[in-house]
Amino acid sequence: MKFKISQDVFSKNLLEVGRVISSRTALPILAGIKITAEIDRIILTGSNSDIIIQKTIPLEEIQETGSVVVSAKYFSELIKRLSGTVMVESCSKHITVHSEEIMTHFNCFNADEYPDVPIFNSENHTYINGKELIEVLKRTSFAVSKNETRPVLTGVQLTFSMNKLTAVATDSVRLALLETVIDSSFVGSFILPSGSVNELLKLVQQNSEKVEIQLTENFIHFKNNDTSFYSRLIAGNYPNTSSLIPNDNKTVLSMSRESLVKGIDRAILFAGEWKNNNVKLSLTDNNKLSITSSSSEIGTIEEYQNINHLEGDSDVSISIDGNFMLDALKVIREPEIKIRFNGKMKPIVIESTEKETACFHLISPVRS
Amino acid sequence: MKFKISQDVFSKNLLEVGRVISSRTALPILAGIKITAEIDRIILTGSNSDIIIQKTIPLEEIQETGSVVVSAKYFSELIKRLSGTVMVESCSKHITVHSEEIMTHFNCFNADEYPDVPIFNSENHTYINGKELIEVLKRTSFAVSKNETRPVLTGVQLTFSMNKLTAVATDSVRLALLETVIDSSFVGSFILPSGSVNELLKLVQQNSEKVEIQLTENFIHFKNNDTSFYSRLIAGNYPNTSSLIPNDNKTVLSMSRESLVKGIDRAILFAGEWKNNNVKLSLTDNNKLSITSSSSEIGTIEEYQNINHLEGDSDVSISIDGNFMLDALKVIREPEIKIRFNGKMKPIVIESTEKETACFHLISPVRS
Repeated sequence: MKFKISQDVFSKNLLEVGRVISSRTALPILAGIKITAEIDRIILTGSNSDIIIQKTIPLEEIQETGSVVVSAKYFSELIKRLSGTVMVESCSKHITVHSEEIMTHFNCFNADEYPDVPIFNSENHTYINGKELIEVLKRTSFAVSKNETRPVLTGVQLTFSMNKLTAVATDSVRLALLETVIDSSFVGSFILPSGSVNELLKLVQQNSEKVEIQLTENFIHFKNNDTSFYSRLIAGNYPNTSSLIPNDNKTVLSMSRESLVKGIDRAILFAGEWKNNNVKLSLTDNNKLSITSSSSEIGTIEEYQNINHLEGDSDVSISIDGNFMLDALKVIREPEIKIRFNGKMKPIVIESTEKETACFHLISPVRS
Repeated sequence: MKFKISQDVFSKNLLEVGRVISSRTALPILAGIKITAEIDRIILTGSNSDIIIQKTIPLEEIQETGSVVVSAKYFSELIKRLSGTVMVESCSKHITVHSEEIMTHFNCFNADEYPDVPIFNSENHTYINGKELIEVLKRTSFAVSKNETRPVLTGVQLTFSMNKLTAVATDSVRLALLETVIDSSFVGSFILPSGSVNELLKLVQQNSEKVEIQLTENFIHFKNNDTSFYSRLIAGNYPNTSSLIPNDNKTVLSMSRESLVKGIDRAILFAGEWKNNNVKLSLTDNNKLSITSSSSEIGTIEEYQNINHLEGDSDVSISIDGNFMLDALKVIREPEIKIRFNGKMKPIVIESTEKETACFHLISPVRS
């Protein structure tokens, strides 16, 4: 393998691929980055047990094809510290980088031992707008379970049905659900691990470019220009969540999202020492929302916020994990939100209805 | 105590004072911030065992004087989350903050139990330009010892002699020394703990305003506008360092600072696994500086850099801790530096001569 490449292009791509690579890995070769020189391009591959990232760089000056696996950490750090054009050359056990009066040799792994990327059937695929993909993942993935006892709950369930994409995440205390209209007739459902969601969000550009999605039973492939992102899927049956959002409600109120965010953010200061960040919501006689919290150690807070519209029973009093409310409120884009109450021990629903997108957050109360 | 204050002014000052306060403190009241309302001002005091920061805010609307000590962390966080004008009122056991429809109560400590600030004799004092103070501390303090076995070495020694300020820091493997001309006839020497140096650097504005310095045997007071910074001094005798910088040298070379920084930064990548970040410097037959490093695990690097001027013996070969070299090179402001060598086992001296300021760095070689 032998090629010349501009240092800034090489460095940028190495860092993007290297992000998923961990130096503490059960399979030592996965601490490396695979560099493959083909006739007119080089391909960089980085991987951990769940994710593979691949970047393709078109290149004219390939003098010799071949491939090699080199320590991701040290190699990327060295390339970052060079400038101009760098000359890369490898023999079976070493890779040499040459730039001006700087000569380095790196030990290598045997490229044949590097795991292959999964193979996809070209038929089972669709396209999605990159911006839409980011939106559905960002606005639901925070609600996944951090507890490994039910693995399916540690991922985001994505369901494509005729022109509709639904994303659901839940840790069984709270649930985030987002439904959006998309331009695709693809039908299918899978569970994406939350670690993959986080890496994918860093990689996909916040623009309207199309991202191709390919599926097998165990793997998914997102492809955008010169970047390929492969992720393992979580096996198992995701719980049926379609019946969880209640249809009739005791009380429905609408109010300013921003003002509620600020109020809850203040109230959780006083609930910080508690296990569940308890914040109490109730309606006052003059139909304001009272937000209170108290701690024997710190003190108390009590504040009142205006309600824009109130329907149903005004006898509302419920204790909620304030951090869960904040998480939900922060991913709503509309200035006004709706909160639905169904009694002291039933989950509340926070919702916003946007054009072509419906966003629901279910949060179970804390038993106080 | 009762006063009205603008939220942004209050919050900014609370955060500045709160920075030195730790919630894990042997004396619980030191986790609090002391708020004192006088006739025309409020004074905020925060402290840890070594440092006291005091901010004075001139204020017209003091309705009742008094003082109180409240949990720094929670109180500051609450004020940060308010807006507009806030009303602060205290009784013996609580402090109440009122803003629009938000009412909070905080538990308090008894203000009488808060330690007093040290008292200074107004005669033993001088002034220093704020920018100069920052420069001498930033350019030496990195070299203090991290090891508590010789407490005097964990601080920076500052010595005022007629119109000259000298700062020295050493961990006995390397030493940083800076001498600068100042406009002060003050004479005195003291050792400032490195923790205090770091906090002081955050607090003093990077401008040319005068900072007043007052001294007692055990404490120092830096005063700049409405900010007072008190620090405990380290007791004990600082080693005599004036004779350590050698006068005659086997080899003296001068070269580009920036290029050497880049070269050392590359070389230490390959020395990362070693205890001492070993980098080998030597002169080649054609009078270039060779920088090499190698690791059996990662690989090797070898590069050559141009020398601007060479004097003396060209037989140079020495192993140095690359991180120590980088620390020294990074605080030199001139584009060209001088390196003096005195043999394989003798410390090297890196120096720059600037107008009115002399900067020396002594680094002992690694036995390889």
